[in-house]
Amino acid sequence: MRTQVAIIGAGPSGLLLGALLHKAGIDNIIIERQSGDYVLNRIRAGILEQITVDLLTEVGAGDRLKAEGIVHREIDIGFKNQRHSIDVQGLTGGKVVTAYGQTELTRDLMDARRAAGLTTVYEAGEVSIHDFDSAQPKVRYVKDGQHHELACDFIAGCDGFHGVCRASVPAGSITEFERTYPFGWLGILADVPPVSPHAIVYANSERGFALCSMRSLTRSRYYVQCPIDDKVEQWSDDTFWDEIRRRVDPELAERIITGPSIEKSIAPLRSFVAEPMRFGTLFLAGDAAHIVPPTGAKGLNLAASDVKYLSSAFIEHYIGKTDAGIDSYSERCLRRVWRAERFSWWLTSLLHRFPDTGGFGQKIQEAELEYLVNSKAASTSLAENYVGLPL
Amino acid sequence: MRTQVAIIGAGPSGLLLGALLHKAGIDNIIIERQSGDYVLNRIRAGILEQITVDLLTEVGAGDRLKAEGIVHREIDIGFKNQRHSIDVQGLTGGKVVTAYGQTELTRDLMDARRAAGLTTVYEAGEVSIHDFDSAQPKVRYVKDGQHHELACDFIAGCDGFHGVCRASVPAGSITEFERTYPFGWLGILADVPPVSPHAIVYANSERGFALCSMRSLTRSRYYVQCPIDDKVEQWSDDTFWDEIRRRVDPELAERIITGPSIEKSIAPLRSFVAEPMRFGTLFLAGDAAHIVPPTGAKGLNLAASDVKYLSSAFIEHYIGKTDAGIDSYSERCLRRVWRAERFSWWLTSLLHRFPDTGGFGQKIQEAELEYLVNSKAASTSLAENYVGLPL
Repeated sequence: MRTQVAIIGAGPSGLLLGALLHKAGIDNIIIERQSGDYVLNRIRAGILEQITVDLLTEVGAGDRLKAEGIVHREIDIGFKNQRHSIDVQGLTGGKVVTAYGQTELTRDLMDARRAAGLTTVYEAGEVSIHDFDSAQPKVRYVKDGQHHELACDFIAGCDGFHGVCRASVPAGSITEFERTYPFGWLGILADVPPVSPHAIVYANSERGFALCSMRSLTRSRYYVQCPIDDKVEQWSDDTFWDEIRRRVDPELAERIITGPSIEKSIAPLRSFVAEPMRFGTLFLAGDAAHIVPPTGAKGLNLAASDVKYLSSAFIEHYIGKTDAGIDSYSERCLRRVWRAERFSWWLTSLLHRFPDTGGFGQKIQEAELEYLVNSKAASTSLAENYVGLPL
Repeated sequence: MRTQVAIIGAGPSGLLLGALLHKAGIDNIIIERQSGDYVLNRIRAGILEQITVDLLTEVGAGDRLKAEGIVHREIDIGFKNQRHSIDVQGLTGGKVVTAYGQTELTRDLMDARRAAGLTTVYEAGEVSIHDFDSAQPKVRYVKDGQHHELACDFIAGCDGFHGVCRASVPAGSITEFERTYPFGWLGILADVPPVSPHAIVYANSERGFALCSMRSLTRSRYYVQCPIDDKVEQWSDDTFWDEIRRRVDPELAERIITGPSIEKSIAPLRSFVAEPMRFGTLFLAGDAAHIVPPTGAKGLNLAASDVKYLSSAFIEHYIGKTDAGIDSYSERCLRRVWRAERFSWWLTSLLHRFPDTGGFGQKIQEAELEYLVNSKAASTSLAENYVGLPL
């Protein structure tokens, strides 16, 4: 079996890359170790930068997003029992973000891929990648008990943080930067109307961070900072709703509509970057190369910009007959990645309670929050990062 | 002996407060444990916000500052061997800072106080403050072997971080917030022309922070971050000059004119705030209540804004016959103090090498610096803090 670009991973990155390449007439096959249903059931991000919306539209997977996505023109920041609105649209010359669940986006891309008749190998076992230091890299996997080898020109590693692609790079060729955080996020999804259809609410409180967000006008996503060792079984729905109400201002607390959770989980927070993002004919994209804490909603959007750069590089290679894009791929991505890492780390540091920073840390957070909501320059800085810095 | 306001400490805060009160016809006496020469020989800050310049001018101590102070319209930020200019004046609608040594400013205030015939008791021993929970507070001290008691309406504690005033407050009445930093600043003063008469240069480098600043067109002040345990004897002038040249970009390194140091010392960096700043008839101002790391050049300017609020409060009390200013003194000061603490902590965190943040910390600094010099919003945020947020 042979293709031009072998894509490892059928999450949003791999699907979007496949769609962009297909649109340019470049042959690609996706290899995914999980089933399609499994991929669809991963509950992840839900805030899209305009760049991401544009890419989905470009590949013809933007119709439902356009109809059902909810435009956010502002961010609400809560601290010291008050809430302040940041006019993101006004401060950025008209830019906004769109709330649309990653699950929905993945479904749209899967449907488009199926409609185009493109090959995705789901439930591929023992996936391994080979010879990416040469012009003849290969992917091997087992499917239905049979061993397969896929020959290709390039491998795109879109297989996430725990995937096989980054793990296959010789240790001496890669540098990893990492920070972990001393807390987790307990998140619940519930079919209740959000507190606001207009904005996400980020709250700093003495009890820890809280986030009120949404997937649609009838489905809400809430998070509270929790100890990293907490087990989800410790948190009944009632305990969760009680806790989040204590972390937001009283007016907002009254407006939270509760209901049974349809998903509840605890996730650790991590900042991670692997450099470079290209190794011969292997290219990492998205979570395979970098992780941000979810506070800035940058993970999916960074994956989309990686894929934009990578599809452009492949198109230039096959159609423009230049490898300039391939050679600059890693550097272009990493410049944007580090800016988003900086933003995500900063917003995480600003909003969470850290066990080791003490009273001074809390006072500094409150001073920064007060400055942030009162200074146009500081608010603009937040807003321009939130909608996404230019490509 | 009796006065209306007893001021403890004849540094810039105490002298400026005395001058503002005298101008309003309010009687005051300054008690200082050191000699005038000792106070003058303390080498400290040298960058004045416009608010501070205006206050000095208001009390008639601004002539030499006006003639000799050097206006800075920009800040230069160095990292990764390049230097970037931030147009502070352009970004703040015309605001600037003025380079003028604290020694000179103190001398001008001392001269003005002497010319006005006001009392300053230098070399006062065993200074103690009493009964500031009442309307009859007292200051006691020993001068030339004689015990003295100064009765007053109010005590102004302008006696610095190690002074007697804050230390006299009962422990249960005060809350202290503190952060120390795992490094010091090695500073030298030399009679050589500065690298630039237009701007201060702040440099982030893999070897640690460096700062190129000036006191006049013929006197320069340079600093390098050093291990907290270093002794000044370990640093010959040549070692210092070699080190600072390694921490700035090559073009700038070539322009540094070296010469023998006339002062060389190592100072620790500290963030500290005591709350509240008023205790009955005792009011803390400046370093007695709060310390910032010197990175943002905010220490002297915060002292000046405290003194501005405090003089207004006393003037309102004696002349306006209202205690509103007295009652709001602590809150008004602390709002501005925490903003400056935030700025100073942030700039310190951005520019220094921290032993415990590792490769990720360095990458985040570089990403933030790159964003800072490329985003108008971020540059404006730096600039508006640097020139001083409004009173």
